[in-house]
Amino acid sequence: MSLKLYCDLMSQPSRALYILLKSIKCDFEVKFVNLREAEHYSEEFSEINRFQRVPVIDHNGFILTESVAILKYLSRENIIPESLYPKESKAQARVEEFLEWQHAGLRLHCAMYFRVKYLNPIMFGKPVDAKSLVGYESRMVSALTDFNTKWLGRGTDFINGNTPTVADLLAACELEQPRMSGYDPCENFANIAVWFKKVREHFNPYYGEGHVIVNKIIKKNSKVASKV
Amino acid sequence: MSLKLYCDLMSQPSRALYILLKSIKCDFEVKFVNLREAEHYSEEFSEINRFQRVPVIDHNGFILTESVAILKYLSRENIIPESLYPKESKAQARVEEFLEWQHAGLRLHCAMYFRVKYLNPIMFGKPVDAKSLVGYESRMVSALTDFNTKWLGRGTDFINGNTPTVADLLAACELEQPRMSGYDPCENFANIAVWFKKVREHFNPYYGEGHVIVNKIIKKNSKVASKV
Repeated sequence: MSLKLYCDLMSQPSRALYILLKSIKCDFEVKFVNLREAEHYSEEFSEINRFQRVPVIDHNGFILTESVAILKYLSRENIIPESLYPKESKAQARVEEFLEWQHAGLRLHCAMYFRVKYLNPIMFGKPVDAKSLVGYESRMVSALTDFNTKWLGRGTDFINGNTPTVADLLAACELEQPRMSGYDPCENFANIAVWFKKVREHFNPYYGEGHVIVNKIIKKNSKVASKV
Repeated sequence: MSLKLYCDLMSQPSRALYILLKSIKCDFEVKFVNLREAEHYSEEFSEINRFQRVPVIDHNGFILTESVAILKYLSRENIIPESLYPKESKAQARVEEFLEWQHAGLRLHCAMYFRVKYLNPIMFGKPVDAKSLVGYESRMVSALTDFNTKWLGRGTDFINGNTPTVADLLAACELEQPRMSGYDPCENFANIAVWFKKVREHFNPYYGEGHVIVNKIIKKNSKVASKV
């Protein structure tokens, strides 16, 4: 069996797959694609993924993009254990209900806030437009409110029951993104704070390993903020 | 077997599920939830879907939201035939790769253009903001360009091969949405025009039945436009 993961640990779903494969002791090869160096736009990588994005897997020559499609495939191929991706039809549907919801329900808003507040000023050298940021923050807060009350806060430790699944890991990696731009969901949402700690603990030490760069950026930015 | 579909034919994924279930001669009950009458915000419907959105299914008492999760579940339950949703792992992954891509790659941009240009002026009585519409249109055109060249235009009749799958039906229903606001993807993208005709033909007469209201709106708006 040969499994390669093309990823960059600055990408949320890349981290989720990296942490997952490490935590299940999967024998895979990491191929880092440096987004800051625009390696995803190279001719070589464009041959692998015509959408020029990470993550991508190459499983015995079968190349697949889209993190959620990759999770499903790896579950069918029995690489992800049933405890993290249920096989029983209804339990699987509950996990997939979240995996589908999060695209436009959570990921979009956390990623856009991070991009507008943190990434665009670095990439384009322009200050943040305060008025437009208010809109992005308000949409992110609304998404986090839904996540905090409609997915969490239902009396279980994790999104779907008392053991974690791939849904929890994917969500946690998304919620790290706004932290880099100074917004910590745990400071504002009680259920998220309790749940986040449990997800990190479950997937450690690999969760920490996948977030080394992210945590450095968070630390650096909080020092800058405290000096302002 | 009891299967109920809660839907409104103004909602793209609602239409996709309605047309699919009709075309495979599934014995299901349609429960219309009138979005224009805000029936999705009613207490009764909020009990069914805490996210107050359609489509939703109730399969022998098992309630499931999120159209893509519903498609996967109905495939596992052998309600959707293998021809429309492959069982073989790699073929299934190719269909799911599109189902995951379309959330933020296609649906988001077509839906936002429709909302900003058509729905918001009706709902809030305010004229379209021309400057902001340019941005929405440009993002939609970019998404349609990707769809036209990176999913279609690969030498096959449909998204994944020479027979249609649920991916084609879901995509087609999304592409009807901007038509209601005066933008027809077929007029600007050659591969989309050829493919669209084939999808409609394959799923007719049910495709037409699911789009009766949509087509009335398109006809009405084109008459208004021709008078301007």
